[in-house]
Amino acid sequence: MKSDDTLRRLKTIEGHLRGVIRMVEEDAYCIDVIRQIQAVEGALNKVSAKILEDHLNSCVITAIQGEDMGERQRVLQEITEVFDMANRV
Amino acid sequence: MKSDDTLRRLKTIEGHLRGVIRMVEEDAYCIDVIRQIQAVEGALNKVSAKILEDHLNSCVITAIQGEDMGERQRVLQEITEVFDMANRV
Amino acid sequence: MKSDDTLRRLKTIEGHLRGVIRMVEEDAYCIDVIRQIQAVEGALNKVSAKILEDHLNSCVITAIQGEDMGERQRVLQEITEVFDMANRV
Amino acid sequence: MKSDDTLRRLKTIEGHLRGVIRMVEEDAYCIDVIRQIQAVEGALNKVSAKILEDHLNSCVITAIQGEDMGERQRVLQEITEVFDMANRV
Repeated sequence: MKSDDTLRRLKTIEGHLRGVIRMVEEDAYCIDVIRQIQAVEGALNKVSAKILEDHLNSCVITAIQGEDMGERQRVLQEITEVFDMANRV
Repeated sequence: MKSDDTLRRLKTIEGHLRGVIRMVEEDAYCIDVIRQIQAVEGALNKVSAKILEDHLNSCVITAIQGEDMGERQRVLQEITEVFDMANRV
Repeated sequence: MKSDDTLRRLKTIEGHLRGVIRMVEEDAYCIDVIRQIQAVEGALNKVSAKILEDHLNSCVITAIQGEDMGERQRVLQEITEVFDMANRV
Repeated sequence: MKSDDTLRRLKTIEGHLRGVIRMVEEDAYCIDVIRQIQAVEGALNKVSAKILEDHLNSCVITAIQGEDMGERQRVLQEITEVFDMANRV
């Protein structure tokens, strides 16, 4: 199951984030906290790319091969939007 | 023509970048230079999103509706790759 | 306390991330999951900027006003590094 | 001279960007154009980090060691701002 892998990765990231919270509670050095936050973001980026890959190989193929032009347009538009957003976060 | 719009945007960005080079030559304040570089990057992100949008609405639709499974796989894989890269630059 | 604000923000983000995990468990629409992950990343970026701001106004000032040249160099180098990394995640 | 290095890098990037424009004029494959734009952005990020490094080692040290509290505050605030922006482009 593909979403099992996504779920497992997200739970690992949740654990990582809890570790960051503990660091702040224990008054860790600022730069070390920032580096760990950046590591969490790097891991989130990888999960996003994985989810997009699964999405392209399922919903997007179905929509493009289907008859519904509006649906096809909507699905392609969403990909442009998340790509645009990826450039900004 | 869609690519005329892309071309015009890229040439505007080239002019913007030449402006940044002039700023450095004239020894402008560092932070102002960084801000202009960030503005150039923002504009490049917008062009990328535009090119991807055009690509989705042409090559990707053709590939997914075609018979060639390898080609379809290749086209979808590329989108995941540029999305992943967008998260990193 | 400045770190109370950081802590509160991070705990809110942890709650947000748990919401994303629930979405995946309930098989939510891929693009909605990606958008929520991007929102989490946006919030993490804001916390990072806040932590850096606090760091600049404490450790960095102390180091630069101190006598220890090695320490000063180290502190400034770290800022360049997290800035460079910020460009990449 | 540090700014000679910055200038040389920016001119190389300008050449790279002109190459991208040529690719679009010659109707190159969309994904290849996007990849080259991302490479340009990666190079711009490196220049930004370099300029910030030089700035930290000159203006920022001067401001923090000076008597002018307003100036010091301004200089530190600017760094937070470009860091915050770096997270977004």
